[in-house]
Formats: sequence, C-alpha cells, structure tokens
Amino acid sequence: MRSILVIIAASIIFSISDDTVEAKGLDKGVGPYGEFWKPIPTQRYWAPDYFYTPPEEPKGVYSEEECVACHKALNPGLVKAWEESNHANFDKIDKIQNYQNIDSRLAPVTNPPYAPIGKLQDYQREKLAEIEKHLGKKLTAVGCIDCHGKIGAEKLDHAKELVMPSAAHCGECHKQEFEEFESEKHYGIPDWKPGRESHAKAYDANLDVDVWAAQDKNIVQGCDMCHNIQHKCDSCHTRHAFRASEARRPEACQTCHNGPDHPDIEYYRDSKHGSIYFIEGNSWDWNKQLKDANYISPTCQSCHMYYKGQYSHNMVRKAIMGEGDVLFYDNIFKGIKPTDYIKNSKELQSRREAWIEVCVQCHSQRFSRDYLDSMDKASDSIFHYVSDAYATIKSLYEEEILYPMPENRPKAPAPVIEKYPDLLGGFYGEFWAKGGNPSRIEKDFLYMWENDAFLVRKGLAHMNPNGFTYISWSNLLKKYVDIQSEANTLRRLAALEKKTKLRSKKIREKK
Amino acid sequence: MRSILVIIAASIIFSISDDTVEAKGLDKGVGPYGEFWKPIPTQRYWAPDYFYTPPEEPKGVYSEEECVACHKALNPGLVKAWEESNHANFDKIDKIQNYQNIDSRLAPVTNPPYAPIGKLQDYQREKLAEIEKHLGKKLTAVGCIDCHGKIGAEKLDHAKELVMPSAAHCGECHKQEFEEFESEKHYGIPDWKPGRESHAKAYDANLDVDVWAAQDKNIVQGCDMCHNIQHKCDSCHTRHAFRASEARRPEACQTCHNGPDHPDIEYYRDSKHGSIYFIEGNSWDWNKQLKDANYISPTCQSCHMYYKGQYSHNMVRKAIMGEGDVLFYDNIFKGIKPTDYIKNSKELQSRREAWIEVCVQCHSQRFSRDYLDSMDKASDSIFHYVSDAYATIKSLYEEEILYPMPENRPKAPAPVIEKYPDLLGGFYGEFWAKGGNPSRIEKDFLYMWENDAFLVRKGLAHMNPNGFTYISWSNLLKKYVDIQSEANTLRRLAALEKKTKLRSKKIREKK
Amino acid sequence: MRSILVIIAASIIFSISDDTVEAKGLDKGVGPYGEFWKPIPTQRYWAPDYFYTPPEEPKGVYSEEECVACHKALNPGLVKAWEESNHANFDKIDKIQNYQNIDSRLAPVTNPPYAPIGKLQDYQREKLAEIEKHLGKKLTAVGCIDCHGKIGAEKLDHAKELVMPSAAHCGECHKQEFEEFESEKHYGIPDWKPGRESHAKAYDANLDVDVWAAQDKNIVQGCDMCHNIQHKCDSCHTRHAFRASEARRPEACQTCHNGPDHPDIEYYRDSKHGSIYFIEGNSWDWNKQLKDANYISPTCQSCHMYYKGQYSHNMVRKAIMGEGDVLFYDNIFKGIKPTDYIKNSKELQSRREAWIEVCVQCHSQRFSRDYLDSMDKASDSIFHYVSDAYATIKSLYEEEILYPMPENRPKAPAPVIEKYPDLLGGFYGEFWAKGGNPSRIEKDFLYMWENDAFLVRKGLAHMNPNGFTYISWSNLLKKYVDIQSEANTLRRLAALEKKTKLRSKKIREKK
Repeated sequence: MRSILVIIAASIIFSISDDTVEAKGLDKGVGPYGEFWKPIPTQRYWAPDYFYTPPEEPKGVYSEEECVACHKALNPGLVKAWEESNHANFDKIDKIQNYQNIDSRLAPVTNPPYAPIGKLQDYQREKLAEIEKHLGKKLTAVGCIDCHGKIGAEKLDHAKELVMPSAAHCGECHKQEFEEFESEKHYGIPDWKPGRESHAKAYDANLDVDVWAAQDKNIVQGCDMCHNIQHKCDSCHTRHAFRASEARRPEACQTCHNGPDHPDIEYYRDSKHGSIYFIEGNSWDWNKQLKDANYISPTCQSCHMYYKGQYSHNMVRKAIMGEGDVLFYDNIFKGIKPTDYIKNSKELQSRREAWIEVCVQCHSQRFSRDYLDSMDKASDSIFHYVSDAYATIKSLYEEEILYPMPENRPKAPAPVIEKYPDLLGGFYGEFWAKGGNPSRIEKDFLYMWENDAFLVRKGLAHMNPNGFTYISWSNLLKKYVDIQSEANTLRRLAALEKKTKLRSKKIREKK
Repeated sequence: MRSILVIIAASIIFSISDDTVEAKGLDKGVGPYGEFWKPIPTQRYWAPDYFYTPPEEPKGVYSEEECVACHKALNPGLVKAWEESNHANFDKIDKIQNYQNIDSRLAPVTNPPYAPIGKLQDYQREKLAEIEKHLGKKLTAVGCIDCHGKIGAEKLDHAKELVMPSAAHCGECHKQEFEEFESEKHYGIPDWKPGRESHAKAYDANLDVDVWAAQDKNIVQGCDMCHNIQHKCDSCHTRHAFRASEARRPEACQTCHNGPDHPDIEYYRDSKHGSIYFIEGNSWDWNKQLKDANYISPTCQSCHMYYKGQYSHNMVRKAIMGEGDVLFYDNIFKGIKPTDYIKNSKELQSRREAWIEVCVQCHSQRFSRDYLDSMDKASDSIFHYVSDAYATIKSLYEEEILYPMPENRPKAPAPVIEKYPDLLGGFYGEFWAKGGNPSRIEKDFLYMWENDAFLVRKGLAHMNPNGFTYISWSNLLKKYVDIQSEANTLRRLAALEKKTKLRSKKIREKK
Repeated sequence: MRSILVIIAASIIFSISDDTVEAKGLDKGVGPYGEFWKPIPTQRYWAPDYFYTPPEEPKGVYSEEECVACHKALNPGLVKAWEESNHANFDKIDKIQNYQNIDSRLAPVTNPPYAPIGKLQDYQREKLAEIEKHLGKKLTAVGCIDCHGKIGAEKLDHAKELVMPSAAHCGECHKQEFEEFESEKHYGIPDWKPGRESHAKAYDANLDVDVWAAQDKNIVQGCDMCHNIQHKCDSCHTRHAFRASEARRPEACQTCHNGPDHPDIEYYRDSKHGSIYFIEGNSWDWNKQLKDANYISPTCQSCHMYYKGQYSHNMVRKAIMGEGDVLFYDNIFKGIKPTDYIKNSKELQSRREAWIEVCVQCHSQRFSRDYLDSMDKASDSIFHYVSDAYATIKSLYEEEILYPMPENRPKAPAPVIEKYPDLLGGFYGEFWAKGGNPSRIEKDFLYMWENDAFLVRKGLAHMNPNGFTYISWSNLLKKYVDIQSEANTLRRLAALEKKTKLRSKKIREKK
C-alpha cells in the first residue's frame, strides 16, 4: 500500500514521455537521432522490437515437433538448453518433492541455509495455476512457437511470423514480473530524463546519446548489447534455460555491470559481502525466492531488488546512481555541492531512507546512517577536485590557451553539438576523437568526472575499501595532477609564443 | 622450541614501542598525529577500542533472550548468522560424527582430499574443553552479551556497557589464536618501525601516516577499513558466523589484499597455484585445520601462516614484503642495490630460508632457491630504472627546472612535512594534490616505486608470469618513458624561457 | 577426412622451418639470437629440453619405492598429487562404476547435465588398452621413473639420468594427444613465421623476439613461464595429478591468457558465456570428454578445441588471433584495411567458416555470420585510428620534430635493430627503455596497436560488450588523444626553438 503511494508520487514527479518507436527493418535508425544513423544487421538481435525481420529461409509452416527436429540438428546447444528449462519440464514439478532430503544430508559439511525443497514445488504449482488462469487454458509445456510466434499457436510461418520475443511477450505469461520490470519507467533520476537509467528504458536511453548515434555501429553495438535489457528478459535469465536460480546470482549482473564505467561486480567481489558469497555461495539454495533466501551475506539482487519489505523486478526505486553524472558533472555548472544536492531533494532523501532499511537487516541503524552520511561527505571532497579541474580547463578556454582551441580543430560528427565551454570534457570523447578534439587535458577531465569521481562513491556504496581509496580516489588525483601540469605546459607555451610573436590574436577572429 | 628462540631473537632486533592509545569518544584523534584530525562517526566501528561509545538508545538492562528477540526483529540477518555459528551450536558438536560418510560418497566424482569428519568433532571437543578449563566454567553457548558485554554476564546495560569486541576480547576464550596473532608485533621489517606491516599493529601503522592524518576522514576511512584488522578478528572470520572454514579460503583475504597497491588475490588467482584452487577448491574440506589440510595446491593461508613446520595466526615471520618501500624507495637515497640489501641482512636471509621450506613442500630445493634468487636479481633491474627516474627528477629539482618548483606551489597540509629533494614523488601524492603539487613527473615516479616496482617482485613471488612482465614491468617502463619525455619538455621550456627572458632567477630567491 | 585434407593444404601454405635446437647446459643461449644471451638457472625448468641437467646430489641409483619414500619426506605435496592421479590409481578404474548414481541424487537441486559415470570407466579402460597395445606391455601404474627417466625402467641414476619430461615424453603413451598437439606447428598465421602463435612452437617463438634476447632473463623469464607450453603438458594438466577434468575448465587457461596483452579469461568471465559457466559450472561433469560434455554454455576449450565436428589438442586451426599484429601493425605499413585483408585471404576465410560452425551450435547462421562480419567492420574503424596515429608520429620523425630523434638517444641493446621510421612504436618498448628511447608518443602508439586495437577485436570475438567499448575502444581513443596533444606540444616546442635559434639543423647531420 505504502509502496503504491510512492509509485504514484514518483509518477507525478517524473512524467514519462511516450515517444513509442515503430518496429522497422534495417532502413533507418530510430529514436531522437534516428535520422543520423542506420542500423547494422546485428542490431536486429539487440533490439528486435525495432529492427527484427525473419530470415527469408526456410520458407514453410512448421509445427513444434518440426522446429525441435530441425534445430536439434542445426543448433543442438540451443535445444538442449530448452530441454533443461522448466518450460520443457512441467511434468517434473511433481518430482521435486522426492529429493527434499538431499540438502540436509550435505548440511553438516557446508552448513548451508537450505530451505525445504517442498516449498519450491508449491511455488511452481501456484505460479503455473496463476498463469493458466490468466491465459484461460491449461499448459503442458512452453515450446518454440509460444515464444517465437504466438502463445498457444500450433504452427509458425517461419519466413513471416518468426519473432525474437520481447519482455512484453514474456509478460503475457509472467504478468507480475513484467509489470514490476515496467514499473521502473516511473523512477527517474531527479534532473534527468524520466526513466533514463532504469532497465526498462535502457535501450531508449542509449538512443538518446548523441555520440552513440554518430559513431560506427559495429563499435557502439557494445552499448546495445547491455542496453537491450529493455527488450530482453534473457539478459539475466539466459536463454533457453531461463533459470530463476541463475538470475539470482551476482554473476548474472556482471556482463553489463563491470568495467571502468560501472565496476559493480569488481567492487562487490572484493567487498566482505562479496567474499562471503564467493566462499559460501555454492552451498546456498538458489532455487529459493529472494524473500525466503535469507543468505548470510547480501547479493546484488538481495539489496537492489528490495524495497520497503518486498522484492521485485524493479531495481531502481532506491537507486541514487544517476547522481554520478548529476552530482559530479551537471552540478559543477550549477555550483551545487553533493551534500546540499542530496539534502535538498525529497526524492533522494526518501530513497536514502529505503536504502538504510536494507543495511539495517544486518547492521545497526546508527552505523548504516553514519556510513551513508560519510559517503555523501566524501562526495564533497570529490566535488572539490572535479570543480577545481573544470575551473582550470575553463580558464584555459577563456584565455584562449586551450590547444587546439575548439574553433581550430575538427568538429565532432552530428548529432553531437559542441557548446563550449560547457562541452569541455564532454562524454563524446570516450567514443570519438580527431586531430586534437578533445585534447589531452579535456580527456583527463572527462574520465575524472565520468569514471573516477563516481567510482569513489560507488566504492563507498559497496563497502569496498580499496574501491574508494587506491582504485578511485588515487585515480581521480592522478588525473587532477596531470591536468594541472598540462595546464602549466599550455600556459608556458602560449606565453612563449606570444613573446616570440609566434602566436597572434587571429585565433579568436576565425570564429 | 626453535621458533620460540626466533621470537626472542626477533624481539631483540626490533624493540616494540608501547605508545598505547587510550579509548575515547569522537572529540579528538589518536596516535602521533592525533592533534591534526578528529574522528568521524564511522570510525567508532573501524577502531572501537579508540572511539566506540554505545548509542544513547535503547536505555535499559537486557538479558540474552531480550537481545535476540529485539535484534531478530530489527536486524534478522545478524541474528541468523549467529544462529549458524558454532557459538550458537555447541550441542551440534556431537552430531558431526553422523555425517562422516558423506564425503566418500562424493569422492569418485570430484576426487577430493576429504579427511574423516570424526577428527573435526574431536578437535572441536578438545578446543571447547580447553576454553572451559581456561575460563574455569562450563559453556553451553556463546551469546550476544559474552562478546558485546562481559563473558559470562547475564545482563547488559545497553546504553552504558555495550562494546564492539576487540581481538583481545576474543582472545579471552581463543587464547592461543590471539597470542599467535599478537606475536606479529615482534616481527618488523628491518629499517622500518617495529611491527609496521604486521596485522597486529596495522591500525597504529595507519595512524603513523602523515597524509592519512591530513586528509578528509570520509575518504581515508578506506584505509581504516582494512587496517582495523589490528582490532578485529572478524576481518577474516566474518561476523556473526565466525567460521574457520571461511577464514581458510583465499577469498577471505581479498577485501584488503587486492587493487593496485597490493594485488595479492589477483596475482594468486592467475598463478597456477590459484587456478588449481579455483578449479578444485570447492571440493576440498575447509573444516580441516591447516596442518591436516594437505591441499593439492597452496592457498594464501597455507603459505603465509606456515613457519618452520607449524601453522599459526602469525603471518609475517617469513615476510619480506615491507622491502617494497625499503628496497625501491628508501634504498635509492642510500644507493643500495636489492641483492646487496637482502644478502647483507641476517634477518632477511633467515626469512628466506623459512620461505624456501614452504616451496620445498612441493618443489625441489634447487628450483626453489634458484627461483627466489632470480626474484632478487630481477629486483636489481627494477632498481636501476627506479634510481634512474629519481636521478632525472632530482636533477630537474636541483637545476630549478621542476615546474612548479616546490617553493612556488601550495604546500601539502600538516602534518605532511615537505623535505626536498627527498620528498619528490612522496607517498602523500596518492591522497592529496593541489595546484601543481605534486607535478605530473613526480606523480609518475611515485607510482613507479610505490606500485610497479614492488609489483614486479610480487608477481615473481606469486609465480604469476604476466604479473611480473606485462602487468608490472611494462607499467614500470611506461612511467619511466613518461618521466624521460616530461623531463625533456620541462628542460626545453626552461631553456626557451631563459632565452626569451621569460624566466628569471627570482624563483629560488623566494625561498 | 575433410580435416586431413585441410592439414595437407595448410602444410603447403606454411612450410615449417626445422631449426632444431640442441639440448645444452647453461653455457649459452639457443635460437636465432642465442649468441646474445645466457640462460639463468630457472630456465632449466622453463625449457628442460634445452637447458636441463640433473642436480649433482643425490648420487645413486634408485628404485620407484626409494623415489617415493625419499620425496614423500622431502616434498610431500608433490607425492600426494601423484597419489591422487590416475597414473597411481589404475586399480580404481573398476570402482568408478559403483558411484554412478551419485549425480542423479543431486540432480534436482542443481539440474546438472551429468553423464552416466559408467562411460568414464569405459573410456579409461579403452585408453589404457590402447596405450598398452602401443607400448607392447601391461601397465599397473605410471610412476616416477616412467616420466623422470625411461618408461618401464626399474631404476634411475639420479645424478645422470633424471629428466624433466617433455611433451614428446608424455606422447610416448599419450600418442594421439601429442600428435594433435604437434599438428599445431602446421597452422601459422598468414604473413607470419610458420607456427609462430601455436602452442606447439610457443617457446621457439619466444626465442625469436629480439628484445627478449636483449633483456635481463630474470625479468623476461615471465615470457618463458607461458611460452614453455611447447615443452610441457603440465601447463594445462598440472603436475602431478594431471587431471583431464582440470584441463577442461577455463581457469586452466588463465595463468597465461590474462592481463593487458591477452585478457582472454577476463573477457570470457564477463561475457554471458562466462557468467553462465561461473554460475553453473561447478555442477557440470568435468570427467566427460569434450565430445560428450554438451555444456549449456561454451568454455575456452569447447570453442577453441573444436574444428569441423571434432575436438582435439590442436587449438589454432580456426584461430585468427595473430591478425592482431598483422591487421593493426604490419598492415599500416602496407595500407591494407582489415576487411580487405581478411576478405582476400583464402586461409582466413576458411578459418572463419570453421569458426561459424562453432557459433551455430547454439546460434543461428544469420546471427553468427552478421556478428563476425561486424567484428571485421569494427576493425576498419580501429585501423583508421591506428593508421592516423602512426601517420602523426611518422611525420614528426620526418620533420625531425620527434624528441629526442632516434640519432640522439641511446640505442636499444642488440639484437634489437632500430630501423626507422618502421620501428617507431616498436614492440621492444614494452620491455626496454632508456633516456628518451622510446619517447612518450611512441610508447602510446605501441600500446595502441599492441593492446587496445587488438582488444577491441578480442572483446567482440568473446561477446563481451564492455570489452570492446569502455575497456578497449575508450583506451584506444585515450592514447590517440594523448598522441595528438603530445604531437602539438612537440611541434610548438620545435617552432619556438627554431624561432629563438635554440634549434639548428645539426641534428640530422649527426647521423
């Protein structure tokens, strides 16, 4: 009840744009910058709703048995995975009971928190009954055509009707899970576009990025391969086994949540939370629902899917992540310190309270509150360095000492719009560069706010001590140091050129 | 006996300072630089002996049952972990026997080196008897008040008596383990402060670092979160399950021993030793004591806790790690090559002999000796580059070409004392920087000696081929190359400024 | 049959040089640069065929029982591992059958694809019979002398006859596996030396590298420790347990295939393929042969050991890896775009077709083909940046603006030959540097082609989205940006020096 009120409140705060994109072939792009790019063939698979069309061959109308027979020969691994899935094994639900004792036999060795397996059977029976009631018919299995055609259809015209199923398609049976997932669209980051960082609008958020639109799709399809989670349940429940037990494990998140821009798995792995998981996790019962799991240490899922006493497929209701860009980039231009920004946002304050509820499951109120406060206060120290670095670069720009000055170098390709000084150190530099645009000092500033600054905060959030000291704080300072020294070199060169008449005022006049 | 003699000998070599720090609230800092900083609230938890005071609420005197009832509602995860612990399950010791056959049933699949489980029961019975004898009474369980108040107390005044238990508190029952741990204080690194790199003096070593004292505690609490091992047994045996089986696994070390400053877990993971552990470790019996374990591949614990035939909680008796700073930094100023330094130290020679004893468990004498010799000889090559880089920077300083010169830039905050040229590339630059202090060239040198140089050696020590070639040696050379090129740029700029009269001699006069 | 034809075809394309290196002591090096270096003692173990001689002690002739008795006391871990091996347990083959039910009991918990264990027994029996037939005698065990002396010998003269077994020695029993392994020598990379990147010629390829020959062996033995796979089966099947089940797991590859030069395990780990393995792999049956394994997700082995329907110890028959250096370095000088290079090579085209066959086991033809095409097209974007960076540096060289110019700086030690401008950014700079050789801008270019460029491609090949965007593409651009800015600084300094007469033309005259 309480959570429903919050949904409504949030919906008011962040109104959702409804710019639906029509499904197409590969003729042209979609989204706000659709005119600037054309999809490549693999994008059919990254965003099937927008680009997928069936292959021309084979032509024919096939039954379930024919699908399996042919693909078992062509792509045996695909069929095997489905054969292991619950989709193909409704009849095995009744057999689960027989094995309920296996865990207790192992218990003394590994001391695992196994639940009675009987519950799993009950849950799966209830779930199936719910789906059957909802669909208005009995199910004996979920097969190829149900997902790659229409649910319940007997035949599929391969060259005309084949689809790559979207989350909405899965949602026809898995109604509750889909609705939870879709509800993420209502949770934006204050001062950002609605739903910008939710999983449920991830692909559209990708389409909003100017440099993504501008760059070679063969490279930036790397963005698609994660951001396509908007369309694909199998980002976490990988096809064709679709195990919930897989999606409940931290490694399920790591294909997207790793690397310099979002080292979540790395930071989790080396936290105490993570080390306990990696030591003991193999003895935990991953068939349990999160609400019953009660692990001895948190996982990605047990923290991020929790909100006010419930677990759901909405993972962003208490997220303050988007602050990364807001706190350490947008706010430079507004001159707002992180602690002030967070303190003055009712939405962020309420998310923080929900966050503390998670920590308190194992830690004291006082500790949890003090620790998250220290994360905010640390952010002010970060902000100080980021602001100072930006001020350095901005003054170089204003004194025309930046080299080359923006007017004397290649422009970033459309639709990237270069608006200086606000674009100094802009995000486009992570994916495009040419002949001095951006220059070294701008690039260092870009990675300072886009990676290091945020990662100090992320290290703190994930209780990873090296994550916020040697890994991120030191990296932030390295770039700050490089920026100061580069600024000195640029100033000295400009002064020398002026003195020796190698530098005139004509630069600015070029504009 | 032999090991006792060594303890005595070592005690003579490294006398231990006994500057005990009094427990306090959050009013002021502690340690040699205590006057320069104030603790933040979270430090109550990082160093409870120094800063912890109980929360004001709840007021009241509670029994064990009341603790559990209330915290089960407030912090269920915390209570659950305790419920899984041996502390809460003395009565289960007798049941261990029943399961002795489980392992052999699994044996043919995974071929694990399981011990008869019966031994575990014997061990736990003996241990309990020993503790009961030592305490002079029977125990039926270890509960909240035993650890968070006084051992054996029936009641706890929450607002007045609550404590966060220190290692010494654990040591009241776990006498032997605590004494082993404390004995680390007697093992320093030659030419360093006594106990500086031991776990048992880790927090105090932290307090000794000037830039730690100078910096925002919300950031540098990342140091506290590892260095607090001095006070906390639960760094390895995490609360509230406190499993020895957890602390025996390499992942137990990784929260502190990872990252650019000490990538131990990374280097282990990618060694053959580690790959065998990560492939087979899940089938090994972690309930076994190290002396009985006999793994097919070494773990962090099986090498580092071993010394002359025995395993103990003293992990530094054969450590040569502190050499990092000594070999590659301090010794630059003294001009002593690593091989000479090691050869001329009786203490290091004796540690080396103890080290070889570990290798010889699986490798031949000749191989072990030749390999560790090659590690030392490689260190001379590293030293050559580090020395050469320092010489370059020092000459820039002496010729007043460093830019900005120390006298023309912001000073590091107290208590950091800037003593040039010896502080060029000083450690403070990893945590603090401002307006050209340090400059890019000094920063590169800092990471050259503080990370890369040491990591070539660490890579060799951990048998990780990439660890000492592509990862560290190449990183060392990258910085060396950058230093040479930056030096050239600084020299050329200075020469141009002199020639064009943009540079006068007034710089030095400012001093 | 088809595969035999391909072997013959390949043999014609890449003729194999037969410069056999004679076994020696530690007096002098081997290989094309043997005269420039001397082996260090540890190299006896990295390349026993070339450098191993037995230790002088103990003197004596020993039986198997004496070996075990003595080494059990001296090196118990070594003997224990052997005791766990199949070599020591021929008698247990008959007992495998007894345990065939264990897996199905666990099945409902983890849903593992276990095979009937009976098959393993059959396989091992057949294998043993085959070996016995081949050797012409019955075997009851494989012991110390069989491997460290002569197969079937009863006694060993320790100081004279002791050997460290080579792959060929293993091949006396494991004929088929050795022949598969050796067949790699027939698969080179077009435009490279034959067998250069195969495992079977890895050590000799190492000896071909000029800077390896030039550098301190204590450092560059890190290369040996992986490249010695040419001589050692225990790189994957670690001694002395030699489990096939170990060698079948991805971690078996990671000691060599990790790090900035070849982050294969990292890229696999964070792909969906890898996350499934790391979640579920512990429940898979690693005793199964690859052909029967049928994992739900691929491993290093299941992709790389597969070729046209068969699995073997030849892992390079469809490899396009060597392209790294060829596509992004050699081809700069020839001005050939990656797509053109690949399209125009019959050999690479045929490997690509074989590659697609692997993907198609689980993915559609269309997807597999489109995806690998996009990898090639992405390579053109990479090539554009690498070429542009090289052009920048080359023009600096030609205008004599590079600083210091090659003629004014220390020369790389022999046998490295400096041939400019083609050696600008040459590989030697990863292992050697001195006084401005190479300079910062050349070093950045080196890591651009040697690491980042190739790693974008590797990230794509391993389906790791961050691997080819934030990790590699962004790293490539960072260096490109640094190169452009450094070039600007060098140009400005040169112009200033010319204007102020600090720079004369005498530089070139020095040559």
